[in-house]
Amino acid sequence: MPREPFSFTFYTASWYRRSPYWQRTVEAGCTSWDLYNHMLIPTLYDDDETEYWHLLRHVTLWDVAVERQLEVTGPDAQRFAQLLTCRDLSRCAVGQCKYAPIIAPNGGIVNDPVLLRLGENQFWFSLADSDALLYALGVQAFAGLDVELREPDVSPLQVQGPKSREVIRALFGEEVASLRYYWCWQGDLDGIPVVVSRTGWTGEVGYEIYLRDGSFGGELWDRVMEAGRPFEIRAIAPSDQRRIEAGIFNYGNDMDVTNNPFEITGMERLVELSADFIGKRALERIAAEGVRNKLVGVKIGGEPFRMWLEDFWPVRRDGEVVGRLTSASHSFRLRENIGYAWVPVGLAAPGTALEVISPDGPVPAVTAALPFVDPTKELPRS
Amino acid sequence: MPREPFSFTFYTASWYRRSPYWQRTVEAGCTSWDLYNHMLIPTLYDDDETEYWHLLRHVTLWDVAVERQLEVTGPDAQRFAQLLTCRDLSRCAVGQCKYAPIIAPNGGIVNDPVLLRLGENQFWFSLADSDALLYALGVQAFAGLDVELREPDVSPLQVQGPKSREVIRALFGEEVASLRYYWCWQGDLDGIPVVVSRTGWTGEVGYEIYLRDGSFGGELWDRVMEAGRPFEIRAIAPSDQRRIEAGIFNYGNDMDVTNNPFEITGMERLVELSADFIGKRALERIAAEGVRNKLVGVKIGGEPFRMWLEDFWPVRRDGEVVGRLTSASHSFRLRENIGYAWVPVGLAAPGTALEVISPDGPVPAVTAALPFVDPTKELPRS
Repeated sequence: MPREPFSFTFYTASWYRRSPYWQRTVEAGCTSWDLYNHMLIPTLYDDDETEYWHLLRHVTLWDVAVERQLEVTGPDAQRFAQLLTCRDLSRCAVGQCKYAPIIAPNGGIVNDPVLLRLGENQFWFSLADSDALLYALGVQAFAGLDVELREPDVSPLQVQGPKSREVIRALFGEEVASLRYYWCWQGDLDGIPVVVSRTGWTGEVGYEIYLRDGSFGGELWDRVMEAGRPFEIRAIAPSDQRRIEAGIFNYGNDMDVTNNPFEITGMERLVELSADFIGKRALERIAAEGVRNKLVGVKIGGEPFRMWLEDFWPVRRDGEVVGRLTSASHSFRLRENIGYAWVPVGLAAPGTALEVISPDGPVPAVTAALPFVDPTKELPRS
Repeated sequence: MPREPFSFTFYTASWYRRSPYWQRTVEAGCTSWDLYNHMLIPTLYDDDETEYWHLLRHVTLWDVAVERQLEVTGPDAQRFAQLLTCRDLSRCAVGQCKYAPIIAPNGGIVNDPVLLRLGENQFWFSLADSDALLYALGVQAFAGLDVELREPDVSPLQVQGPKSREVIRALFGEEVASLRYYWCWQGDLDGIPVVVSRTGWTGEVGYEIYLRDGSFGGELWDRVMEAGRPFEIRAIAPSDQRRIEAGIFNYGNDMDVTNNPFEITGMERLVELSADFIGKRALERIAAEGVRNKLVGVKIGGEPFRMWLEDFWPVRRDGEVVGRLTSASHSFRLRENIGYAWVPVGLAAPGTALEVISPDGPVPAVTAALPFVDPTKELPRS
């Protein structure tokens, strides 16, 4: 049942942008890439179990230049940024970050970026996989606000794992290493312009280094690797296992613009009605009426999954298809298959027995509370 | 120099949507796919030269379900659709199609779809590779118009090549086979709901069949293959060679939202200032000021290209880098390498000598008029 996903020979092309770290990821042994925001992102170096354990025990470096930034600047930048997200930005100081879903007029989720407030009127939405810059350009058409919208030359790296603090300390000193969760710092590394944030896609201690000039890609990569050598740093791909353990979703896979925050376990509390944003009225109505379906955690029986889910699997209850499995990986430390599924809200409570239909037949599953692994060293997401 | 692009093993994942024709393309011998609008699209069956000649001599079937539709309906649909595009839709009858670039407030190109007008207040924008639905949702936020915006369950096939008319006649009869260029027809094939348009990505005689219910994917594919058997129909991937011969651009590669129509050879005449659309004032200003750079046709010396361009190549003039090559393929009938390049407007006139810098060194090139191959049987694009 949990076979490797279907694979084929993929030919690169000029229409897939390459990261400024591309050559370094090839040299570091990357063997496969994904496509994300029209760019290539490393997806496998040697194998996902080795990479997972390294992330949990040491420190790892990820090329996530695919996290493109939607930059909002100009005299009305704060009001405009507030229009885009359901988070209340009056509570977002300069230097602070927020997990900030971007909301459509009908309440749908356009993207689920991390927002960085770099100045009174400078905001970056560090995007998941959708062209949210286009959404912002559409809003700009009739919003009557004076802003500039663009994708700047910014290419993030993630430094994740229990020893990441040591690496950041060696590179940037104690002030940056001690950043509070969901805060950021602007500066440079011997002339390499960067932003560093205390964020990541793991639930481990971790940082992101946003390179502000792609021509320094190789140099920054080498500096991080060099600083990390005493701490056994290595390049890995984003870990599907670790992000699912942490209750983190993958936009475009677990959810998309046809879903709203009240349908996503844990995202309900991010709708802050004290703020004025696009889609607020739709979300107020949805909150009053309730939702029909919910994205929930599930544990899945059977053999350990290999890598990640190849395609959505139907979810069945009492012999009837009621939803679908969107993510599934094997948690090597829990020794369980874990994932996310869409189910009717009446079946969303943890502990509900289900079946998921693999290509080889039904497998028992049960809904589960999120996150699967409690963060020990982490504060809740800001 | 013209090596095959860098390749690697690609693993499918649930976050890449599959077309309703997926299984049929596998059975037809597809060996590689691309990613486009978050979906897998066939990119190679056996080899691009064999596929090219089949397209020129017979008839071919393409899975282009990745052409997602942005549907605009509702009482204000015409006014809203007009806001999105620089084409004058007062001259677009029901049943007519238009090559209809979607324009951002700053004049940038959001997407370059074919528009199908299916009703007084029903429009499909058949999208190239960008999330233009998100752009439309952004516009909707403050446009004050009553419309519904969605991506319907629609999955196009292209039937392209000199014998395509015979295949469409066998399937749908003479009325549909005789559709004028850039017109469409709505109906069904023994209960399979479709729209058929006289459009395509080749410059050959060709049609698109828009399946309106994905559950019929396999059945529609089989019906087309069966009707095409006497005409030697076969499945191929979209032909980069043939689309470049025809002067057709590849959105996201040759151009993106940072470019405007006045920068693209042949697109200037699509800006119809008789209409009221977003970005009109910006385009009026750009028209008055002129543009600095232009996307033009180029012929490139050296060995024949294999497949397509792996990455952009710098373009040099008098030893100085002045632009970049975005597309290049070998035209098997012209026995020449042809492509597109961005150059300063002063170097845009056909016949200007340039150099392109391949990974193995400089190669001579010269700007060229578009299209490279004059359409013989075709009317100009509507």
